[in-house]
Amino acid sequence: MAIKVYGSMFSTATIRVLLCLTEKDLDFELINIDLASGEHQMPHMLSRNPFGQIPAFEDGDVKLFESRAIILYIVRTYPYKGTNLVSHDPKQKAIETMWMEVECQVFDPAVVGLAWELWMKRFLFGQKEDPAIGLEKKLDCLLDVYESRLSESKYLAGDRYSLADLYHVPMIKFLMDTQTKEVFEAREHLSAWVRDILARRACLKAYCYTGEDAAAATALTHGAHTAVATAVMATISDEIRVTLAPARPSALPGDPPNSGDAPTASTLRRSARIVGARPDTTVPPQGGSTHPPQSPAFGPISDA
Amino acid sequence: MAIKVYGSMFSTATIRVLLCLTEKDLDFELINIDLASGEHQMPHMLSRNPFGQIPAFEDGDVKLFESRAIILYIVRTYPYKGTNLVSHDPKQKAIETMWMEVECQVFDPAVVGLAWELWMKRFLFGQKEDPAIGLEKKLDCLLDVYESRLSESKYLAGDRYSLADLYHVPMIKFLMDTQTKEVFEAREHLSAWVRDILARRACLKAYCYTGEDAAAATALTHGAHTAVATAVMATISDEIRVTLAPARPSALPGDPPNSGDAPTASTLRRSARIVGARPDTTVPPQGGSTHPPQSPAFGPISDA
Repeated sequence: MAIKVYGSMFSTATIRVLLCLTEKDLDFELINIDLASGEHQMPHMLSRNPFGQIPAFEDGDVKLFESRAIILYIVRTYPYKGTNLVSHDPKQKAIETMWMEVECQVFDPAVVGLAWELWMKRFLFGQKEDPAIGLEKKLDCLLDVYESRLSESKYLAGDRYSLADLYHVPMIKFLMDTQTKEVFEAREHLSAWVRDILARRACLKAYCYTGEDAAAATALTHGAHTAVATAVMATISDEIRVTLAPARPSALPGDPPNSGDAPTASTLRRSARIVGARPDTTVPPQGGSTHPPQSPAFGPISDA
Repeated sequence: MAIKVYGSMFSTATIRVLLCLTEKDLDFELINIDLASGEHQMPHMLSRNPFGQIPAFEDGDVKLFESRAIILYIVRTYPYKGTNLVSHDPKQKAIETMWMEVECQVFDPAVVGLAWELWMKRFLFGQKEDPAIGLEKKLDCLLDVYESRLSESKYLAGDRYSLADLYHVPMIKFLMDTQTKEVFEAREHLSAWVRDILARRACLKAYCYTGEDAAAATALTHGAHTAVATAVMATISDEIRVTLAPARPSALPGDPPNSGDAPTASTLRRSARIVGARPDTTVPPQGGSTHPPQSPAFGPISDA
């Protein structure tokens, strides 16, 4: 298989790349990188990404890192496969690019703080989360702009699903499992958009790849009905959440078969410190965010 | 004049767009937005960018925001003007895109914290800066990767200046006026690259546009010698630094002629709160960063 993705189910950046690959209906191999043991910082991974982040990507002799750069390579290289995710009309393309940048520069920085408060502090550091009211208020203002935009067009860049929408999926999928879901559901057009982009077959398939249920992924590949896929996803999603609770002494789904002992709360905490603030590594479930407020490990490659 | 940029000399994002326009040798009009009075949050600017950030951009009926999206529009729309800043070879283009993403996802988040410590706290909030040793250490590790990369090729994406290099200019230009200059100068290939990209004629010209010396900009447009341009830039740069000191009761260079009283330390602080954490608005001199650690105004559109 030509395309290889070195990543983790705990990485929103990895999931972003998988979303693109499943939308483009491309075959690929997902090689799980064990964040808990710091595998992303080991020489074999530093040779793939010198900043020690995931995902890393290989397509024959093309070797890349940075999830959004990988995605742009994929859509440029395979324009006629699967879903067309980019426009060729110059003005439309400019609008798509603008909303892709909004995700990266405005949306993502706003939600990583929430992810820190709502997930990481409690699960990885055993701290009580602070009321996320301030952060949610900021998100609230931001989502007003999204609601206004989505009242004008079905998708962010127009009437067609594009990379602008796809880029948002991983963090939105995470937030839908937190109390912040309510601020999305309070908005008619925004919540319709969220339901739409999360129910896409390619999206469900990508999340199956990040879990351990390869059979479910295979079923989806061969055209399982969306309702079935949703049920499968719900199961996998629950499983992931339960397994992540530090107290449960089981292997993480997606761990390599011979990866040794299951990670403990301690190893998860260590991993969180390692990946603390790496934009292209960290994800809410794994712990950490690009810039968690008062994160104990703010800044990239702090432990390199 | 068809192209209009609504921005500010205090905004690295604005400067990023100007750098592209000067490299592409395009005529444009820079409309100064008075951050100190919160002009970027006023209706006429919110209609140009609903997130209340600068720059905003107009080229005829094309209206955009987000500096990197604007730049990609410019290079796609005017491929044969001025410097060719993007490659057409697919593999080379992928490498360029990867290093453009590195700037955005790795480099920028690392240096905005430094900008906060080294500039904003002292000048805008009257606080003593904390030793930036931790932040500089993180930058140090990151710059090792850059040094390694630049020992392989003259520019980040290869042997030719590209958007990957241009994206880095605004923050590097700022850091060269701080103690952090030393960590760049300690690396042979990195410091050669910095000297090269900051000495480009288009770069000097862009910085003239952000100052008040329109004559200097005009001189550069008509082919002033680089040494002369450097001298002009040094003058303008000094002027900007001195004028920014809160105690000096003078108008900010670049303020509209009828903008009223010169900003005081108080108005600068207010402005800093307003633009606190907006990636596409904030710049070190104005105060704030995308995610300043423990910033009193973390988060986007907090004051919208």
